[in-house]
Amino acid sequence: MKKISDSTIKRLSKYYRTLDELKANGTMMISSNDIALINSITSAQVRKDLSFFGTFGKRGLGYNTEQLHDQIGRILGLKKLWNVGLVGFGNIGNALLNYNEFKTQGFHIKAIFENDFSKCDSKVNGVKISHINQACEVSKKHNLEIMIVAVPAKYAQAVVDKFVECGIQAFLNFAPTHIKAPEGVLIKNENMSIELESLSFFLSNK
Amino acid sequence: MKKISDSTIKRLSKYYRTLDELKANGTMMISSNDIALINSITSAQVRKDLSFFGTFGKRGLGYNTEQLHDQIGRILGLKKLWNVGLVGFGNIGNALLNYNEFKTQGFHIKAIFENDFSKCDSKVNGVKISHINQACEVSKKHNLEIMIVAVPAKYAQAVVDKFVECGIQAFLNFAPTHIKAPEGVLIKNENMSIELESLSFFLSNK
Repeated sequence: MKKISDSTIKRLSKYYRTLDELKANGTMMISSNDIALINSITSAQVRKDLSFFGTFGKRGLGYNTEQLHDQIGRILGLKKLWNVGLVGFGNIGNALLNYNEFKTQGFHIKAIFENDFSKCDSKVNGVKISHINQACEVSKKHNLEIMIVAVPAKYAQAVVDKFVECGIQAFLNFAPTHIKAPEGVLIKNENMSIELESLSFFLSNK
Repeated sequence: MKKISDSTIKRLSKYYRTLDELKANGTMMISSNDIALINSITSAQVRKDLSFFGTFGKRGLGYNTEQLHDQIGRILGLKKLWNVGLVGFGNIGNALLNYNEFKTQGFHIKAIFENDFSKCDSKVNGVKISHINQACEVSKKHNLEIMIVAVPAKYAQAVVDKFVECGIQAFLNFAPTHIKAPEGVLIKNENMSIELESLSFFLSNK
């Protein structure tokens, strides 16, 4: 497969949500132009993004909403359940455990890790909190595939290193710091103030 | 000013963080190539993004780290404090109130809004929770400029409509739903499962 850019994948995620809402509204067919309008981009961009993955829809007729939803879901790997671990159970960890959107998309938090012994061995929403010393043992037991890192910035690199040793290859990092990882390991950063900066840019340049 | 793309702004936010860390490490000068390497993009992209805003650095010498940090901060509107309101004080609202990165970048949460009367009129971390019925009054009092929307999806559109009426023009929406806004109002969506989908795509296509 050609190298697909990060922005293409992010847009596919957005199209997937658009199609989700349209499906719920009972819209049967949709054009690239409709998808483009809802997402404030050009229809050429929509068609280009989809073209990386094959031919969808019929020229002049558009796409079948349900079919395209299903196909994009398949491309994004959303047709299976993913076993996810959560490292760090502070304010953000707690909010993420209760973030229903993860479960809706097939990301199931199966284990929580903490370095604070006083939090360990209890269960929250049915999920056990284990000490980070048991990283590999628990990851193997639950067949974890993706780790969410919600620890303070100064611990984030050590946490990732630890789970890379356990064979984890995909991380979503909420700590506001740059993390290094070996080849073959993907780290995505979720920095919630970056979207705020798009807003401050917008307000400063009105 | 030319129309600047959303992706350019997001990358500027990333360069800003890179420069932040380099400054802290005592790195005085930096090349577009260094910035590119750290952010896994091309140096041509870095130079192109910066070129929208003028001429920075010296050919062959690179950029003065502190100066470029300062200039990008100015472009992003980070050289002032922003008065931010938070709507919805559930798990996510609580995590966001405690998210230090907002304050570090100059986004200060000055007011919280709830529709649950039992939560109202108390203070959390020194910030008062007001009922959403007082949206305009409290927004005016604190001179709010940006609203963070952390309410359930079904209330998000009504919340935005309400604050648009109060004159708010910039929203960061955490509810997993598409929100419509009149021209001149910017809504950015923070959907935390979108980054997870880049990971599931990566793992599915290895």
